[in-house]
Amino acid sequence: MTQAKAGAGLGEFGRIATYFRPLAVGVPGAFDLTDDAAVLDVPADQQLVATCDGMVAGVHFLPGDDPADLAHKILAVNMSDLAAKGAEPLAYSLVMALPRGTSDEWVAAFAAGLGAAQRAFKINLLGGDSVSTQGPLSLTINALGIVPRGTMIRRKGARPGDAVFVTGNIGDAALGLKLALGTLAQPVPDADRAYLVGRLRRPSPRLELVASLRVFATAALDVSDGLVGDLRHLAAASNVGIALDARTVPLSPAAARLVTRQPELLSAVLTGGDDYEVAFTAPAGKGDDIAAAASSAGVTVTRIGRVTEGPVGVAVLGMGGVEMPIGQGGWEHR
Amino acid sequence: MTQAKAGAGLGEFGRIATYFRPLAVGVPGAFDLTDDAAVLDVPADQQLVATCDGMVAGVHFLPGDDPADLAHKILAVNMSDLAAKGAEPLAYSLVMALPRGTSDEWVAAFAAGLGAAQRAFKINLLGGDSVSTQGPLSLTINALGIVPRGTMIRRKGARPGDAVFVTGNIGDAALGLKLALGTLAQPVPDADRAYLVGRLRRPSPRLELVASLRVFATAALDVSDGLVGDLRHLAAASNVGIALDARTVPLSPAAARLVTRQPELLSAVLTGGDDYEVAFTAPAGKGDDIAAAASSAGVTVTRIGRVTEGPVGVAVLGMGGVEMPIGQGGWEHR
Repeated sequence: MTQAKAGAGLGEFGRIATYFRPLAVGVPGAFDLTDDAAVLDVPADQQLVATCDGMVAGVHFLPGDDPADLAHKILAVNMSDLAAKGAEPLAYSLVMALPRGTSDEWVAAFAAGLGAAQRAFKINLLGGDSVSTQGPLSLTINALGIVPRGTMIRRKGARPGDAVFVTGNIGDAALGLKLALGTLAQPVPDADRAYLVGRLRRPSPRLELVASLRVFATAALDVSDGLVGDLRHLAAASNVGIALDARTVPLSPAAARLVTRQPELLSAVLTGGDDYEVAFTAPAGKGDDIAAAASSAGVTVTRIGRVTEGPVGVAVLGMGGVEMPIGQGGWEHR
Repeated sequence: MTQAKAGAGLGEFGRIATYFRPLAVGVPGAFDLTDDAAVLDVPADQQLVATCDGMVAGVHFLPGDDPADLAHKILAVNMSDLAAKGAEPLAYSLVMALPRGTSDEWVAAFAAGLGAAQRAFKINLLGGDSVSTQGPLSLTINALGIVPRGTMIRRKGARPGDAVFVTGNIGDAALGLKLALGTLAQPVPDADRAYLVGRLRRPSPRLELVASLRVFATAALDVSDGLVGDLRHLAAASNVGIALDARTVPLSPAAARLVTRQPELLSAVLTGGDDYEVAFTAPAGKGDDIAAAASSAGVTVTRIGRVTEGPVGVAVLGMGGVEMPIGQGGWEHR
């Protein structure tokens, strides 16, 4: 955290010492964030897995969002990538571009949220940078994980005959976004609203399933851009087709209630993104083993389709097994 | 490069494939930037060194700056941290927040500059993310390096009796910034202007000296916030005093001409920052060995002071050995 300075009040160095240093105590080589770089050991039989994601106010979140929610989300989004790749979290770094005048209170709440999130995800802060900006708040996390050598799960590797699985429920965040933006026509019970918006703001990376994914998955990615769009990425990388049975896509009770009353919302569910679930392929005969592993990890896993010889891409099957006209899919942040 | 999408024209995926994929061919585990994460081997006897820096338009560079210069600088700034820590570059990731409407031509020029810089620094792209922003251009690099186990050079470790050294010349960038901003009173020959602004825009990380630094340095950091301010960091971490002889601080001919005509510029030279040279301490008796190593690496190294018992901090000695009243020093980007 050496480069540029941001904010008033405690100042950059004071903020680091007060709010961020406690987040780094679990990494001896982070040197309490007092040096220019951190040093890390990677066990000899392991490989490093690296991923990064950026989020910008006004594009990926709403400017007034709770700082603790933002902290949870930016870390969760990166942990979701590690989980989908079969990697155990190792450490992460954070770069913040803070609008001038960001208060110490905001930074304190953000750091507290980050602390809670990193305890939940069993990862610690390695280092970072804090700079000021005349523009919107912008957050970048670089996450490092480890896998036993040669076991990182790729998008590539799905084989015809494999089954397609997904963790958790799909569509909650897309519906939660509509609720947060006020663009949903129908009235929604408070509890359903809280649940759906909560899923948007505090996604649950499926780290509990990492070891099982390494055993069973032939290909995997996390569902960030939308189920259909992300499965298209997987299909393209694996050079296969995917037949996705929309009727089997797992919905939460809150999402199911909304879609039942307003069936056209199914398209948002299937393409809306921000789910941060893991979609993966595995040999069809492993379904029972996967169900057992998922149950013991406390994560639901649902079979939602099958891998075909092609054509390369995703066919979405709806009522009566008829193919649904789902467009490009994938959520383009514009 | 999976998360959010930015820009028009080729679109995010097209830009990655066209401009950034070629930058990742040197890292097999980057999978041509087609997966959600990259995988890297760290040799068994080595440790990973991680550092990151962010830069924001309007704060760290001027909005109209040449994209190839920006690419050079954001990578160089991170390489400078690795160099000061004694680490060999391994790979880096890049997160860009691009203003809406950023043209493909801009991205192409940025990527070309990045390609030239990474060839110069012998490092390759590992992965990244590209997002759009309603605010200014913002760039973040996370750089990974390696060191033999236990050899990362800390800020801590300087001992009374050590000599203080610095690579290259100090103050060029601070004077270059004044020229770029038009805040320098005196007229400056075109060649001097070009040299000084060039040093601001295209710093030279001292990677050639990495192996020698690991052998000789007891403590080190890169000079990014200003020589005096950064030496204060080193003195504080090492719990020592530093007597910096301002008369021995190495100046380029262009900087020397300016300071000679306008002696008050010496303060800007000593505290202005953006030098990206390495300041380090080493046993005083190793001066000849260090000079020989520097000469063979093609980097100048100058002895600029000595480490004392204290008080903790930096005393700057000027003409006649009288202490100069240098204030807080360190360049605060506000």
